[in-house]
Amino acid sequence: MGKNETVAFEEREAFCPVYHRAVELIGRRWTGAILRALMAGVSRFSDLAATVPGMSDRMLSERLKELESEGVVVRRVIPETPVRIEYELTEKGRALQDVIEAVSVWAGRWAVEEAEAPTG
Amino acid sequence: MGKNETVAFEEREAFCPVYHRAVELIGRRWTGAILRALMAGVSRFSDLAATVPGMSDRMLSERLKELESEGVVVRRVIPETPVRIEYELTEKGRALQDVIEAVSVWAGRWAVEEAEAPTG
Repeated sequence: MGKNETVAFEEREAFCPVYHRAVELIGRRWTGAILRALMAGVSRFSDLAATVPGMSDRMLSERLKELESEGVVVRRVIPETPVRIEYELTEKGRALQDVIEAVSVWAGRWAVEEAEAPTG
Repeated sequence: MGKNETVAFEEREAFCPVYHRAVELIGRRWTGAILRALMAGVSRFSDLAATVPGMSDRMLSERLKELESEGVVVRRVIPETPVRIEYELTEKGRALQDVIEAVSVWAGRWAVEEAEAPTG
């Protein structure tokens, strides 16, 4: 099967370790928000920290390290005074755009449905 | 903007609370795997528990309750002897198929890339 082909869900295995590993990585607390911010062009540590409410610098640092070790993000040190550190999505990271889009569409749609639905 | 329209990422906010809530729900530990199993047609508690390696019954039960309270899953009690309990995706839950697909495609593609890449 080619890389980009999809198969109907009925033909898929109910459990897939490769999928499982990916969904656990992307879904780790704060990671989804960090990926969205990176995709929107936020690149400095302090800007990323300011973008996501409630996330501590420690958590941001930990998540960025995980994403770096998974090849999703690269950390670049820009030799200025003071040194500037930026984070950027790799090709593998940018390829997550479809995932972020799909979550955004789903979230937007069902937030609307629920706001419109009668309460109770 | 219509429900199903998408906009380019450059035009999106770097942070979106509705997206954030959704990605944290879907990404919670085990939830991605449970959703995939439900989509593949697994419906009984014991079958779901057997599908996902390493997940305790306690965790499965907790995650199913969360998904139920979010309107993603319904729990049905089938009055047989012994009583049979099944779980099924709601319309909102089935709408997550695009998300699960996108993660599966990404995971499949990059697992292949990494297997093919020279080490080091």
